[in-house]
Amino acid sequence: MDFDQTKAYEILRKLSAGKESFDFTGLDAKRVKNFTVAMAGGLHYSYAAAPVDEAVLEALQGLADEQDLIDKYRALLSGQIMNTGEGRKVLHHLTRGQLAEPVLHNGRDQRDFYFNQQERIAAFVKAVHNETIRGTTGKAFTTAVQIGIGGSDLGPRALCLALDGWATAVGRKRMDGYFISNVDPDDGAQILESLPLDQTLFVLVSKSGTTQETLANELLVNSSLQRAGLDPAKHVLAVTSETSPLAHNEAYLDSFYIDDFIGGRYSSTSAVGGVILSLVYGSATFTELLAGAHEADRLALEPKIQNNAALLDALIGVWERNFLHYPVTAILPYSQALSRFPAHLQQLDMESNGKRVNKDGQAVSYKTGPVVFGEPGTNGQHSFYQLLHQGTDIVPIQFIGFTKNQRGYDIVVDGSTSQTKLLANLAAQIIAFAKGQPVAGENRTKEFPGARPSTLIYGKTLSPASLGALLSHFENKVMFQGFAWNINSFDQEGVQLGKILTKKVLSGQSGDTALDAYSELLGIM
Amino acid sequence: MDFDQTKAYEILRKLSAGKESFDFTGLDAKRVKNFTVAMAGGLHYSYAAAPVDEAVLEALQGLADEQDLIDKYRALLSGQIMNTGEGRKVLHHLTRGQLAEPVLHNGRDQRDFYFNQQERIAAFVKAVHNETIRGTTGKAFTTAVQIGIGGSDLGPRALCLALDGWATAVGRKRMDGYFISNVDPDDGAQILESLPLDQTLFVLVSKSGTTQETLANELLVNSSLQRAGLDPAKHVLAVTSETSPLAHNEAYLDSFYIDDFIGGRYSSTSAVGGVILSLVYGSATFTELLAGAHEADRLALEPKIQNNAALLDALIGVWERNFLHYPVTAILPYSQALSRFPAHLQQLDMESNGKRVNKDGQAVSYKTGPVVFGEPGTNGQHSFYQLLHQGTDIVPIQFIGFTKNQRGYDIVVDGSTSQTKLLANLAAQIIAFAKGQPVAGENRTKEFPGARPSTLIYGKTLSPASLGALLSHFENKVMFQGFAWNINSFDQEGVQLGKILTKKVLSGQSGDTALDAYSELLGIM
Repeated sequence: MDFDQTKAYEILRKLSAGKESFDFTGLDAKRVKNFTVAMAGGLHYSYAAAPVDEAVLEALQGLADEQDLIDKYRALLSGQIMNTGEGRKVLHHLTRGQLAEPVLHNGRDQRDFYFNQQERIAAFVKAVHNETIRGTTGKAFTTAVQIGIGGSDLGPRALCLALDGWATAVGRKRMDGYFISNVDPDDGAQILESLPLDQTLFVLVSKSGTTQETLANELLVNSSLQRAGLDPAKHVLAVTSETSPLAHNEAYLDSFYIDDFIGGRYSSTSAVGGVILSLVYGSATFTELLAGAHEADRLALEPKIQNNAALLDALIGVWERNFLHYPVTAILPYSQALSRFPAHLQQLDMESNGKRVNKDGQAVSYKTGPVVFGEPGTNGQHSFYQLLHQGTDIVPIQFIGFTKNQRGYDIVVDGSTSQTKLLANLAAQIIAFAKGQPVAGENRTKEFPGARPSTLIYGKTLSPASLGALLSHFENKVMFQGFAWNINSFDQEGVQLGKILTKKVLSGQSGDTALDAYSELLGIM
Repeated sequence: MDFDQTKAYEILRKLSAGKESFDFTGLDAKRVKNFTVAMAGGLHYSYAAAPVDEAVLEALQGLADEQDLIDKYRALLSGQIMNTGEGRKVLHHLTRGQLAEPVLHNGRDQRDFYFNQQERIAAFVKAVHNETIRGTTGKAFTTAVQIGIGGSDLGPRALCLALDGWATAVGRKRMDGYFISNVDPDDGAQILESLPLDQTLFVLVSKSGTTQETLANELLVNSSLQRAGLDPAKHVLAVTSETSPLAHNEAYLDSFYIDDFIGGRYSSTSAVGGVILSLVYGSATFTELLAGAHEADRLALEPKIQNNAALLDALIGVWERNFLHYPVTAILPYSQALSRFPAHLQQLDMESNGKRVNKDGQAVSYKTGPVVFGEPGTNGQHSFYQLLHQGTDIVPIQFIGFTKNQRGYDIVVDGSTSQTKLLANLAAQIIAFAKGQPVAGENRTKEFPGARPSTLIYGKTLSPASLGALLSHFENKVMFQGFAWNINSFDQEGVQLGKILTKKVLSGQSGDTALDAYSELLGIM
């Protein structure tokens, strides 16, 4: 059912009538204590500073029930066609474990397929780490470079960065990891010029095997390898679908497979993320990440919103987007390790829910996914927080923070560690945004209006398990929002037109005088 | 005068009545040819795909004239107090050159002061490069690390990254450059563990000399230096104001100065950016960047909007924000070298114009600065472009592209170079966003509504001069918007409350039970 046809929509509309913001004067210790939900991986979701009261929560529960959000999730888990436009199942949860009946496709158990790939990856990685597999010159591999773009880049890159400090501290870092994504040749050139090529393994990732940027970068890499006298077939792996031109191809040292039931932005826990993460941090690390994600997937089956962080987060987002009319959400991790996690969530959310038609292809008359952006705190405080505190639009915030830092190296200045300062800033910002500060007198330059809502995901440490839980949380949040809005969160038709026009430009037959004129300005015609 | 009190406001309101989007069917070669403005540094600003026609342009010219935008800029250049709330002049343009009468402060010619600092930096950098100045062990310096946050980090970091490929190709790269910003101790630890400490020079940047994060990171660095048996006084420089506790301090190898008339986010062309850029790429490179910025500053004095790219860009942004009601702007450079330029512009724009009071401290009743975000193309195409093409909100876009890549290394695949593919994508996206694509039949999943506006800054190469021009363009754009909205773009009162509450938390006296409860959740109480 379309979102605005539900009874809950009408109830929520009435609850929000005349309200453009929420009064947080009642935000006290009791609310902070009560408004929290346990998540997987030792994390918790705190929504005390979210703009919701009991009446709103009850209406959001009504929306969850009326739109059958949990039933739809169960249907997805059991292999129903949830990517309706493309007629595909949506199976990324199966890369983490089984939560419903087995899903068969052409007689194959899909969980077995994904698990089998993980075992193949683990065996390959073991052979690299114990130096059974070596490069052209016989030297051991020390460096892994992923070549991919979009979902084959952002998620794996964010996770790889996120675990570097943890792995370094516990002695799990096995190789250096890098990424080449952009078709801009300067991207690949910069990375290639600093690598020990004879000790580098490249992981070429393209589900279709036809991604323009990735194929161009493959040849850029091959050309570098060849100029260094190295054999690409001994240095390049493929991660692709079994039907792609890259599959079962002797040009590659080995190949690992995914399929059409795993969308790019949901593929971090498939071979797309699994190969690079296992190479850099070991297969055990990747397995722990999967376990954290699987536990989060299980908890997301809970029907009661106050016990289901992903579902609650989704519905609070819907309340903020459709009833309080906030067009943007900020993701602000107080953890340098998560520096590129907002960029991954930006793709995950905006590509999934940036849709203007429902799952049957009819235009909807309500807002769907917001713009998502973010940078780590405290850096953001010295940048765009000015607008968040005192701008003319309200931007709801998702904070993330951990009690301990990853590397264990810290320093006491003025009686507190840097880690304590980091977290003191985080706590202070939540209150500053929610409660603001009035001013006496006419001049309101120093006035903080408050009523800026936020939520907080917190835990002890950022480890493989908590990172997996965090990843799953946002994947499931975005999925539940798509179900609530009655849209298809699993296609990306909006990327097609640009591809078509690009091909026309490259073939010299654009068919549009303005497009030719732009090509001329840019010096390619 | 407040923006909504102008006659132009009323004219623009009428012109926009009933319009939520612009019809780009008239976007043809002629419009592309005519709607372009020459900028400094060999760049051009194309606004053919901006949502403006002759009537709107005329009204925007009226707004520029009525709000005295050029006169206000001249007043700023001649040293009037434009940062009204803080009672300060705004003098970052003077770091690039003189465009109005000399500005005196306490009898000192401010241009002389900034220029003198540049000469001191150049002399110091020369001594480092010719190895007259060396570290504790007598080894030459090979690496420079900036310690700073916000404006002392984002701008200099973005510029440093932007010139790496250019400098490598022309042989101007003299040292490796890194940045430590976040108070999260993992940020500093990760960088420090990979450096040749005995050959590393640290540039400590804090105007006030009291920035919490920067002072904590200074001690983290000093502690690393000392554990390595190195003397911090031979490895750390200071960039600060003459009245700060860091000034004239024997703890530093040398010190370079700025003052209160240069705001953090406008400080890239002062010593804040000058020291690190000169160390890494040589003083001549920094001088070329300044020259490009100065030329752009000069062109921004032109009163006719169609001859003044910064002014026109500012006014198109106002039209989009206040009359077409678009809350977000995306900055999408098709150049990997500009990967962190959007993060700098995010601070520049959101911290300058995210204000809800006019320059006299009274609340305004119109929208001011938008949310700004961005990532390089083509990466973004595989991420958030879905929402930009087919989402329920229109997000205007600022594209940037260059005919040639920086490093000169490229490869031909399927008949075109990677650089040509990059630019073909850029041209294609402009047209796809503007013109969209209808569908036949009921199912609108593959429909592109079009009417998504964009502008394009284009040039031959990203060099120091064009980068300086680009930086100045956006600084001046933001300034003109602030003048149009009658706000103070040069203060940042919105950062204060968080600082105050953080201090309370760290002193154990938060005075707020909710704040204590959050501190407890995060494990710091």
